[in-house]
Amino acid sequence: MASLVSSPHALAPFSSHHHRLHHSPNLSTLSFSRPIKTKPNHSLRCSVSIEKEVPETERPFTFLRDSDDSTHSSSTSVRARFETMIRAAQDSVCEAIEAVEGGPKFKEDVWSRPGGGGGISRVLQDGNVFEKAGVNVSVVYGVMPPEAYRAAKGSASDQKPGPVPFFAAGVSSVLHPKNPFAPTLHFNYRYFETDAPKDVPGAPRQWWFGGGTDFTPAYIFEDDVKHFHSIQKQACDKFDPSFYPRFKKWCDDYFYIKHRDERRGLGGIFFDDLNDYDQEMLLAFSTECANSVVPAYIPIVEKRKDMEFTEQHKAWQQLRRGRYVEFNLVYDRGTTFGLKTGGRIESILVSLPLSARWEYDHKPEEGTEEWKLLDACINPKEWI
Amino acid sequence: MASLVSSPHALAPFSSHHHRLHHSPNLSTLSFSRPIKTKPNHSLRCSVSIEKEVPETERPFTFLRDSDDSTHSSSTSVRARFETMIRAAQDSVCEAIEAVEGGPKFKEDVWSRPGGGGGISRVLQDGNVFEKAGVNVSVVYGVMPPEAYRAAKGSASDQKPGPVPFFAAGVSSVLHPKNPFAPTLHFNYRYFETDAPKDVPGAPRQWWFGGGTDFTPAYIFEDDVKHFHSIQKQACDKFDPSFYPRFKKWCDDYFYIKHRDERRGLGGIFFDDLNDYDQEMLLAFSTECANSVVPAYIPIVEKRKDMEFTEQHKAWQQLRRGRYVEFNLVYDRGTTFGLKTGGRIESILVSLPLSARWEYDHKPEEGTEEWKLLDACINPKEWI
Repeated sequence: MASLVSSPHALAPFSSHHHRLHHSPNLSTLSFSRPIKTKPNHSLRCSVSIEKEVPETERPFTFLRDSDDSTHSSSTSVRARFETMIRAAQDSVCEAIEAVEGGPKFKEDVWSRPGGGGGISRVLQDGNVFEKAGVNVSVVYGVMPPEAYRAAKGSASDQKPGPVPFFAAGVSSVLHPKNPFAPTLHFNYRYFETDAPKDVPGAPRQWWFGGGTDFTPAYIFEDDVKHFHSIQKQACDKFDPSFYPRFKKWCDDYFYIKHRDERRGLGGIFFDDLNDYDQEMLLAFSTECANSVVPAYIPIVEKRKDMEFTEQHKAWQQLRRGRYVEFNLVYDRGTTFGLKTGGRIESILVSLPLSARWEYDHKPEEGTEEWKLLDACINPKEWI
Repeated sequence: MASLVSSPHALAPFSSHHHRLHHSPNLSTLSFSRPIKTKPNHSLRCSVSIEKEVPETERPFTFLRDSDDSTHSSSTSVRARFETMIRAAQDSVCEAIEAVEGGPKFKEDVWSRPGGGGGISRVLQDGNVFEKAGVNVSVVYGVMPPEAYRAAKGSASDQKPGPVPFFAAGVSSVLHPKNPFAPTLHFNYRYFETDAPKDVPGAPRQWWFGGGTDFTPAYIFEDDVKHFHSIQKQACDKFDPSFYPRFKKWCDDYFYIKHRDERRGLGGIFFDDLNDYDQEMLLAFSTECANSVVPAYIPIVEKRKDMEFTEQHKAWQQLRRGRYVEFNLVYDRGTTFGLKTGGRIESILVSLPLSARWEYDHKPEEGTEEWKLLDACINPKEWI
């Protein structure tokens, strides 16, 4: 564990929900963390107010501030390369989805914030294959209140440091197919950085990576699950043999619907606050993960999209979509924080399915396909 | 404002969500409130663990503990009369719903807790008129940690008082009709009491009432809205002319979806923590409100249940149901607390509609009926 000063968490302001600063594991926006006590009996409540977004008519070459180009060695900065990576990932996933759709196209909303940053939201709704597919990219410049930084430093000094600027960028996507045998997919890769504080000469700039890819079938096809997890493992193994087992478990732990004691789906990989590896290595790892989305997911959708199904299959898929809604609205850190801090609501909630269902006291009969799925959500398995 | 000692809030343990102790404004379970600091920098985190419920084969005559009969002057105690009232309200609402349904009947689940208390959940799903109708009654015995009581007393004494037992009972209901022109209805009436603390002779027993009735149409029929609010006003006016304006505003404020800046529906009445009136008066007022549910709601359903509608009408209703889900899962104190403290999940979530819908960036065209509803949810109106 890094020291308070060198850990980026320590710099994170917080909500009352014990979140770390991170880019939404679902779509868009930023989330903050860790209660920091500044005085006895007084929790610092930080509201990171985010400027209202402004619609744009076209995609800019970059959402980075001009000043970033000069101060951070231009297009070779990690910020710049991460933005390039997530925009390429957005393009390639959207292309692959449109190829599967065979006609229907994504609708694009581009927006920016006057003080810097912006995003591209792409949504394809009620297509041939997808009920709702959202792929978002966003770049956010924000400022952490100085109290958070002072508290993080553990300093008792009364001198007022300036606010600590931060930068965050991410790609985030949820894909809900129509066919109940085709799984829902979610992925999100994000990068966070603070500026070096001006009043503390030599203090390091903080940075970290987070993200993951997980999938949520309504029915289990073992081949699909093995294929999906194998691709995640391959991406991980290229970098560190400990990554897949560690991030697979992290994923099972994160996408947990506590009040049901079940996971929302069959997992994948999830990691957050990663900075204890080489920065270049983690950039390459995030890139590899984002590039693995299409080969991990599209072959499964191709195989399942035209399968025959009954009303019962559809109703079960809709019930599982209800669980997806429960997870996202009750537990997902990015969603809950985004809703409370005024992010772009439509981008945040594009993660919700087009439709969902709640039946009273629904219990699948033991041994049925529905029961098998539920059992795997309650007792996470090792698939490969 | 009552003093700390005489206010029941002061005795309430709490979650980290700044809730007061109250019976769920939605369905079932209890919610707790108010951070109480016991030491500098140390918030007391109270988890009011609730025993696991046990299914019962038949309705008991009462869910009160035997000891209540002897210690609280038996069937004339407020506890006993409140239980009788809410069970009668459950019966009369269910009868009225079944009469409208003309065939389909409620399914009943009776449950109890080993240490006392229990409940009756009734659900009618996929009927002729109602998509989902839930009417629950529950009686809960719990114990507040002594630290909460000591902190509430503002006592610096080091002597350990015993835990403070409390009692809570309520009726709670959400009725979701199929026809998009028939509104959703929610009502909930609850009563809370603590035992007099054994270590403080003469200290008063604490009690309060809470509740409300509100409705959520997808389309505005002015006659319906006026009828609904008039009945609420009549019930209020029998007791205090200040009640209707005050509780109408409280309702508009409570059922607020902050991230949308809109209310979930067209309001009604809502009140909480009421104890600054005569106890008998408030019992009679709660009874009057509960008895007003059928005359306020059933005539509207009768008028609207067979109206012709299009797919567009249905889709709009489903979108509004999505907002209902957002409110209940993100903001409703009873629901969010219930989910986090292990109440009976199926009873808590029976408030969710059978189905709901989320379209990306849906904006009704100005001047349409859908726009008028949305406008009234954004800008609450005086209907009578």
